[in-house]
Amino acid sequence: MSLIVQKYGGTSVGTVERIQAVAEKVARGHRLGDKLVVAVSAMSGETNRLIGLAKEIDAQPSMREMDVLVSTGEQVTIALLCMALNKLGIEARSYTGGQVRILTDNAHGKARIIEIDGHRIEGDLDAGRVVVVAGFQGSDEDGNITTLGRGGSDTTAVALAAALNADECQIYTDVDGVYTTDPRVVGRAQRLDKITFDEMLEMASQGSKILQIRSVEFAGKYNVPLRVMSSFEEGPGTLISLEDEDQMEKAVVSGIAFNRDEAKLTIRGIPDQPGVAYKVLGAISAANIEIDVIVQNVAKDNSATITFTVHRNDLSQAESLLKQIAEDLGALEIDTDDQIAKVSIVGVGMRSHAGVAATMFEALANENINIQLITTSEIKITVVIEERYLELAVRALHTGFDLDSPSAE
Amino acid sequence: MSLIVQKYGGTSVGTVERIQAVAEKVARGHRLGDKLVVAVSAMSGETNRLIGLAKEIDAQPSMREMDVLVSTGEQVTIALLCMALNKLGIEARSYTGGQVRILTDNAHGKARIIEIDGHRIEGDLDAGRVVVVAGFQGSDEDGNITTLGRGGSDTTAVALAAALNADECQIYTDVDGVYTTDPRVVGRAQRLDKITFDEMLEMASQGSKILQIRSVEFAGKYNVPLRVMSSFEEGPGTLISLEDEDQMEKAVVSGIAFNRDEAKLTIRGIPDQPGVAYKVLGAISAANIEIDVIVQNVAKDNSATITFTVHRNDLSQAESLLKQIAEDLGALEIDTDDQIAKVSIVGVGMRSHAGVAATMFEALANENINIQLITTSEIKITVVIEERYLELAVRALHTGFDLDSPSAE
Repeated sequence: MSLIVQKYGGTSVGTVERIQAVAEKVARGHRLGDKLVVAVSAMSGETNRLIGLAKEIDAQPSMREMDVLVSTGEQVTIALLCMALNKLGIEARSYTGGQVRILTDNAHGKARIIEIDGHRIEGDLDAGRVVVVAGFQGSDEDGNITTLGRGGSDTTAVALAAALNADECQIYTDVDGVYTTDPRVVGRAQRLDKITFDEMLEMASQGSKILQIRSVEFAGKYNVPLRVMSSFEEGPGTLISLEDEDQMEKAVVSGIAFNRDEAKLTIRGIPDQPGVAYKVLGAISAANIEIDVIVQNVAKDNSATITFTVHRNDLSQAESLLKQIAEDLGALEIDTDDQIAKVSIVGVGMRSHAGVAATMFEALANENINIQLITTSEIKITVVIEERYLELAVRALHTGFDLDSPSAE
Repeated sequence: MSLIVQKYGGTSVGTVERIQAVAEKVARGHRLGDKLVVAVSAMSGETNRLIGLAKEIDAQPSMREMDVLVSTGEQVTIALLCMALNKLGIEARSYTGGQVRILTDNAHGKARIIEIDGHRIEGDLDAGRVVVVAGFQGSDEDGNITTLGRGGSDTTAVALAAALNADECQIYTDVDGVYTTDPRVVGRAQRLDKITFDEMLEMASQGSKILQIRSVEFAGKYNVPLRVMSSFEEGPGTLISLEDEDQMEKAVVSGIAFNRDEAKLTIRGIPDQPGVAYKVLGAISAANIEIDVIVQNVAKDNSATITFTVHRNDLSQAESLLKQIAEDLGALEIDTDDQIAKVSIVGVGMRSHAGVAATMFEALANENINIQLITTSEIKITVVIEERYLELAVRALHTGFDLDSPSAE
C-alpha cells in the first residue's frame, strides 16, 4: 500500500465532465489500495473570471482581498471532486489550505509554505477516505488566507507529499511526460522515463513549462519522487528523482532546453576594476529587472566588456538604465539585440564525461551557427545564438547527442 | 459613536456596480464616525449557479461538501466589497465565517450559531477599519465549513450585533420597511416606524418575507434593535425592538398578515378520547410534514373533529396518510380543501384591548365572508377563509383597524 499525492491542474478539472473523469482516475488508485491525497487547481478560466471582477473595481486591488477572492476557485473544485468521488461510492473529504492547515508566510499572492500539519489528513486516510486539498493556497499565522501565486498548486502537492512522507507525488498535466526537447521543434523528441531534480530544474528554468520551478526545488530538497503524467492518457510519465544506480548507463545529455524570450545588452570599454560589475548590474537589479546570463571579458587594452540578458519585455527599460550607467562610467559604447535565443544542453552525465562541450560546439559549427555567448554550470552548457537559427540548432544538438527516437521521423 | 452591523442581501450586491453602491453607503456611515461591521450575501444568482454545478454531479450531494461549495459565494462578495471600500480610501478587512470565528453546530446546510468570537473584529474596529463578514456561514468545532441555510445572512448579522453588543443591526433589502400589510393588496398600506419583535415574528410567520424568522427570534432573545431599510433609497425604515414607553399610544393592531400557501384537512367522527390527536397529527409530523393551524371540536355525540392545515405542496401526501389513520381509528370521513387562505391581525396592543376579535369578525361579516377556522395567540388572531375572499378580507380589516394611510387612495 502506497501513499500517493496527486495533483490535477485547471485544464484537467475544467468542466464537470473532466472533474468526473479525474474522480474515475482517483477511484481506480483507491481501489488498488493506495492511500490518496489529491491537490487540485481552480477550474480553468475561473481564476481569470475572479480577477476580472476585482479589476472592474480596482486596477490594483489589495493583495489580501485578492487572495480571499481567488482562493474560492480551488474551493469550488475540491467540493465538486469530493461529490464526484462520493457518487462513485468513495468516501472523500475536502479541505481548504487554511483547514489543513498549510501555514505560509504573509506575502499575499506569492506566499511560501512554512509548515503543513498532516494530522487531520492522516486521520482521514487511516479511515479509508480520499483527501482532496485546495492547491495554491494556505493561511498565515493570523489565519489570513494566502495564495502561493500562479502555478502554486504543484508546490502544494509536493509540500503535502513531503509533509506526509508520501511514496510519490504525481503531477497530472496535459502532456504525458518530460521530453528530450520540445516535440513541436524536434519531431523525434523522446519522452524521458527518468530525469533528476537538477536536470529538471535546468530544463524548467530554460523554458520547459511543465512544472513550476519552485515545486521541483521543493521536491529535490525533501527528496519527494515526482512523476509527470497525462490527465487524459494512460502511461508511466516521467519520474523525477535523485540520481540512482542506473546513472552510469544514462545518456550524457538528457535534454535540450531553449528560450527565445530574452534580449542581450552589452556595455564596452569600461574600466577593468573592482566594483564595476556591481555598478552595471546592481542598477539593473534595483529596478526589479531579472538578469539571466552574465558574461564578462577583458580586452587587450584592459578595458572590460559586460554582456547580459534580460526578458525582452524589460529591454527598453534596461537599455535606458544602461545608457545612464555608461555615461557615469565613461564607457565606450553599449549595444542591444533582441533577436537572440538561448539553447542549453542539460544532463548530470556530463559531469563525468569530457568532451561534451566540444561535441556541442561541433554540432553547431557543422550547421554554420555562430555562438555569441557561452556559459556553463555543472550539468548544463548554454549558448546564445541568433534567434533565426534556433530550431536548426536544437535539431542539430538533439541528433548530435543521440537523443532522436528510433521510431518516428 | 455607534457600533452598527449592516447586512446587504444578494440583490443589493448582485453586480460589481451594486457592490460599489453598497461601498458608498458604508463609506458614508464610516465617515460619520460609526464603527461598522457589514455582513453580506452571495451575489444574486451565484448560489444557484454553484448548486447547479453540484447537481450535475449528484442529485443529492454530500451536505458537508455542499457547504464547502456554496460558502464560496459570500467569500467572493466580501473580497469585492473590501476592494470597493479600499478604492474609496477606507481601510477594510474581510473575514469568512470560519475566520471570525462563527462557531456553529455541525448540521450542514442548516447549522445554528453557538458562539461568535468578537475579538478579532473589535481589534479591527478599534484600528479604524470597516469589517466585512461573509453571511450565512460558520464552522463547526472541527473547523468544517457550515452554512446556516438560505436567508441565513440575516441571522449572521443579528448574531454579530449581539456578540459585539452593537447599537443597531440594519438589514438592507429591496423594500423600505415593514408595512401594515402587503401594499400590492392594499394600496393604502403604510410603512410602520416601529414594531415589536413579537409582532414581527407573527407577521413573518404569516408570510411577510422581509426577514428570516430565525433572525427575528435571535434579535428578540438578545434584544438587538433591528432596522429594515432599503438598499436603494434613503429613509428611516422600520425599527424592530422591544416594547417601549410609546406602547400605550400605539395602534391596537399593527398589521394584517396573510398566506395562501396552505391547504386544510378535516377528519370527523373519531373517538373523543386521550391520544387521538396524537394518533392523527403524530403520523403527519412523522412524515416531516409541517402542520400549521390545528383546531379540535367535540360534537354532540361525543365524537371529535380535528382540522389542520399543511403547506399545499404536502396536501396529497398528508391526505393519503390521513386516509390510513381514518381507517385505523374507524373515523366517519375525511375531507380536504386547498382553496383556503389564512388572514391574521397582529398587534401587541390587543393584549390590553377588549373587543378586538369582535371588531375583526364584524369587519368580515360586513363583507359576507364566512370564517372557517379561528385560532388565537396573545398578540394575533387568525382566521381561515375561502381563498377567493382573501384580498377583500385584508382590505376590510385594514380599514376596520384604522390602518389606511390618509394620503393615498
